[in-house]
Amino acid sequence: LDYQHVQVPFEITLWIMLASLAKIGFHLYNKLPSVVPESCLLIFVGLIMGGIIYGLNDRSPPVMDSDIFFLYLLPPIVLDAGYFMPSRPFFENIGTILLYAVVGTIWNVFGIGFSLYGICQVKAFRLQDVSLLHNLLFGSLIAAVDPVAVLAVFEEIHVNEKLHILVFGESLLNDAVTVVLYKLFRSFCEMPTIKSVDVFAGIGKFFVVGLGGVLVGLSFGLTAAFTTRFTKDTRVIEPLFVFLYSYLSYLTAEMFHLSGIVAIISCAMGMKRYVEANISLKSHTTVKYFMKMWSSVSDTLIFIFLGVSTIGENHEWNWPYICFTLIFCLIWRALGVLVLTFFVNRFHVNTITSKDQFIIAYGGLRGAICFSLVFLLPDFHRKKLFIAATTVVILFTVFVQGMTIRPLVDLLAVKRKRESAPTVGEQIHIRFLDHLLAGIEDISGHWGQYYWKDKLEYFNSKYLQKILLREYDQPKSSIVLLYEKLERKHAIELAEAGQLGHGPPHPSLLHFGFLCSNDRTVTADQKLEDTLSPEVLNNMKEILARNLYRIRRTGPAYNRHTLPGESEPTEHAQELLILRHKNL
Amino acid sequence: LDYQHVQVPFEITLWIMLASLAKIGFHLYNKLPSVVPESCLLIFVGLIMGGIIYGLNDRSPPVMDSDIFFLYLLPPIVLDAGYFMPSRPFFENIGTILLYAVVGTIWNVFGIGFSLYGICQVKAFRLQDVSLLHNLLFGSLIAAVDPVAVLAVFEEIHVNEKLHILVFGESLLNDAVTVVLYKLFRSFCEMPTIKSVDVFAGIGKFFVVGLGGVLVGLSFGLTAAFTTRFTKDTRVIEPLFVFLYSYLSYLTAEMFHLSGIVAIISCAMGMKRYVEANISLKSHTTVKYFMKMWSSVSDTLIFIFLGVSTIGENHEWNWPYICFTLIFCLIWRALGVLVLTFFVNRFHVNTITSKDQFIIAYGGLRGAICFSLVFLLPDFHRKKLFIAATTVVILFTVFVQGMTIRPLVDLLAVKRKRESAPTVGEQIHIRFLDHLLAGIEDISGHWGQYYWKDKLEYFNSKYLQKILLREYDQPKSSIVLLYEKLERKHAIELAEAGQLGHGPPHPSLLHFGFLCSNDRTVTADQKLEDTLSPEVLNNMKEILARNLYRIRRTGPAYNRHTLPGESEPTEHAQELLILRHKNL
Repeated sequence: LDYQHVQVPFEITLWIMLASLAKIGFHLYNKLPSVVPESCLLIFVGLIMGGIIYGLNDRSPPVMDSDIFFLYLLPPIVLDAGYFMPSRPFFENIGTILLYAVVGTIWNVFGIGFSLYGICQVKAFRLQDVSLLHNLLFGSLIAAVDPVAVLAVFEEIHVNEKLHILVFGESLLNDAVTVVLYKLFRSFCEMPTIKSVDVFAGIGKFFVVGLGGVLVGLSFGLTAAFTTRFTKDTRVIEPLFVFLYSYLSYLTAEMFHLSGIVAIISCAMGMKRYVEANISLKSHTTVKYFMKMWSSVSDTLIFIFLGVSTIGENHEWNWPYICFTLIFCLIWRALGVLVLTFFVNRFHVNTITSKDQFIIAYGGLRGAICFSLVFLLPDFHRKKLFIAATTVVILFTVFVQGMTIRPLVDLLAVKRKRESAPTVGEQIHIRFLDHLLAGIEDISGHWGQYYWKDKLEYFNSKYLQKILLREYDQPKSSIVLLYEKLERKHAIELAEAGQLGHGPPHPSLLHFGFLCSNDRTVTADQKLEDTLSPEVLNNMKEILARNLYRIRRTGPAYNRHTLPGESEPTEHAQELLILRHKNL
Repeated sequence: LDYQHVQVPFEITLWIMLASLAKIGFHLYNKLPSVVPESCLLIFVGLIMGGIIYGLNDRSPPVMDSDIFFLYLLPPIVLDAGYFMPSRPFFENIGTILLYAVVGTIWNVFGIGFSLYGICQVKAFRLQDVSLLHNLLFGSLIAAVDPVAVLAVFEEIHVNEKLHILVFGESLLNDAVTVVLYKLFRSFCEMPTIKSVDVFAGIGKFFVVGLGGVLVGLSFGLTAAFTTRFTKDTRVIEPLFVFLYSYLSYLTAEMFHLSGIVAIISCAMGMKRYVEANISLKSHTTVKYFMKMWSSVSDTLIFIFLGVSTIGENHEWNWPYICFTLIFCLIWRALGVLVLTFFVNRFHVNTITSKDQFIIAYGGLRGAICFSLVFLLPDFHRKKLFIAATTVVILFTVFVQGMTIRPLVDLLAVKRKRESAPTVGEQIHIRFLDHLLAGIEDISGHWGQYYWKDKLEYFNSKYLQKILLREYDQPKSSIVLLYEKLERKHAIELAEAGQLGHGPPHPSLLHFGFLCSNDRTVTADQKLEDTLSPEVLNNMKEILARNLYRIRRTGPAYNRHTLPGESEPTEHAQELLILRHKNL
């Protein structure tokens, strides 16, 4: 037995296997995931695993390595989030999202930091040795809302699109702020004296870290799009470039101490439309599928590891500090949302209701990012206290808030996501209004979002598309594409319902066999049509059609763990019955 | 700048990126890959890269780590090979393949080992310090034909299926022999005295290593099939199981010193039919696509690394030894093939022609496996000589034989792969003959391959399918499946040719919109049909159809670097023209 030789890949494979099997296990009992969010179940599995490891080895189970988390587990999730980000609501609410992400996070950091420092001054709690800087450092890591946790919960409760993008967008973009504040306070902790220059440098860094991330991401994204121009003869490695360039953008940003999350999101959003146009349909399915798969596995692993890492002896328990941390996290988040929304609502016609505000505040879940950051802290004598407080805050938000948010959404009757997709009429009207508003803004000299959107679209079609798209000479109107898609769908439906045989096959079809001689099935079709008379063929088709049905795959618009086209088998069964009924 | 933090993933990503870009680069100039095999070009890129690294750092570039090769680069290629292995020709020729793989490899090992030992006795060559055991050890690593190199060359020359499977199957299955002999001689080298018991134990190990690999692989493969029974609600992680279980089978086999290659091939071949039936169509596309992508990247990386590792100072040059190694490799391979084929032809009606024999002997390419094994040798004073000899043999076989085999195949007019797929009639006859022969064998009491195949099929449908397939209660005849596929294809073709609109849409279609209300396009279809009269709709369809064409994707049957359905755009253009002509 030579275990050492294969240990690393073997254990990684086993962990992934455990995560995947756990996921299958939950879904075998349909009732479980509808009550408890998957993230809670996974943490629970992790806790049990941790307990087993602890019991067997009699020492703390291995903690999730922060490097592994930031370098390998986080990027797939963020890439998936960025690639499937609904860009219209995102850019429509970008101002509000940035306000929440930047000002809101700073508000939380300082609020939590200073009030915890106040608690530390109470002598009875025996916490006087925790300095203000350490409290602020702790505040900077505990304040940030976690995209992984938010996604895991919000994708299950189906709130309206605006509310979803506000919480989710904030959780993604606050990374720039968190990175800056966390690194700033950490370096302050190690400095003997802090000059005012350092503080101003810190403020300047916000812009560098955020905008630098966007810049790195966009440049890699456009390079990716440019590369896929040339993959016509090597279709099989096309999907790879999407992953490689996104990952490189993340790593490069991290290397220069910029925000990796912001970089990978800009990369994904920047490349998406060009890559989709360049690569083949199958490559695109693979890209989408693999992104979903990868992020799903990463997310599962993160929650399981969170559970495993909770068990062990690296906690220092101090009731007052831990309780007050939790209370302050909730209070400052609520206050922040209230105050910021007050300003946002003054400048917007479409206001954020108080119900929405409650859900935004309540949806501020903490997760694995805080957890990894707290382990990355430099060693000092109260680190274990911080670890314990972070663990409690994460478990509280994920378990209590995560499990109660769905009943609360039902109770408050928060506006839900519209179930039906917009009709063609609505889509045309939306586009018409966009053009109209861009025109109005242009005439009135107001450089608003429609003006910029129009300019960007012009720049895109004038320059970018020519450089980045392979077949630029054939731009297809989206209405033509839609028609094409409908026609194909219609045809497949006809074939499946067995109604294709009503008209005789067109003679030109007989040439298909010769032209696609490489293709086995078409050749066979050809042979069949050569040897059988049309009547016999029609009869055969009809008889077979009544007993044939392949379930068509259609599904809801956006869900993190499924690709479009994977659900509602009952509807199809119903449809099938109706069709059979009509036929007979 | 914090490079250290991201170094490992960054460099890995960059290497993969280099490999992928190199691949794209070759295919930009269509003439290049048709003359020089891709593997040669990649080694050449590697040589240049190695030269640059050597020039800049003034020391040997990093060598391909044997662990990385065996644990991460080899499995994807073998998995791909196993998963897409044409099982019928493989099992039809299994006897011949095993003979070549086992007896042929042993023949080569001892032939090369003893004759090199003879060369070492010549005083003028100054090689007397290389013992017989070391020569045999060297023979065991240099004798084995390499699957990666063979695949890379043979997929481009399109020889007939039997010839292809003979060389390729041998290269895969000789792994068990190589593992045993290599480990045996290596342990003999470290032993003070060798007893006859050890030699017999070595012979017994052949069966353990080979059959053990098959057993490990099959058990993991069937577990994988069983697992995919339960993935109906977690479609997105379905493809993962195919990869996880195959990889686990490889690692487990390696852990127990069994043949990992044999294990992963049995795993892939064992699970394929059940997994395909259980998982969704999109999952299956992803599995196939990702396997191709992964193996393609691995294979590219291996050849680039081969090139990079060649540059450096770990070579000891000894003209006689290196030249004689090369000569003996060629001679013993040719002799082995001649002798073995003589016996094979005596027992078969369908003999292997002398042209085929020449190609089998000439196609015995050496590759990265030899290279990794030679670096794994225990340190002794002549290791560098062995490295140099191995490098020369690999470069000679890949460059000289790899580049000349295509012209030779043309020159000798070796029977090629049939271009067209078998017709339905042929398929039905083949199946009929199978049943007939199984019956004859059963009556005559001869337990031949048809008898066993029939028994296996019975066992499969009686027990295995019931356990491993999700929807066993609806077994579909393959002729029904074929019809279904034809009907769909026909429908799409009709739609693309714009001939679907000739008949009025059936009233039952109007119900589709209500039933699939989640799906944007169908709803839109519904809306369109509600508001427009059938005549207007038909007119619209016809007008649009003349200007619409989406290229259908069809392609040749098996190619390692492309998935079915990715080629021949010219044919489609032709077809398009014909269709338009007919319409106008």
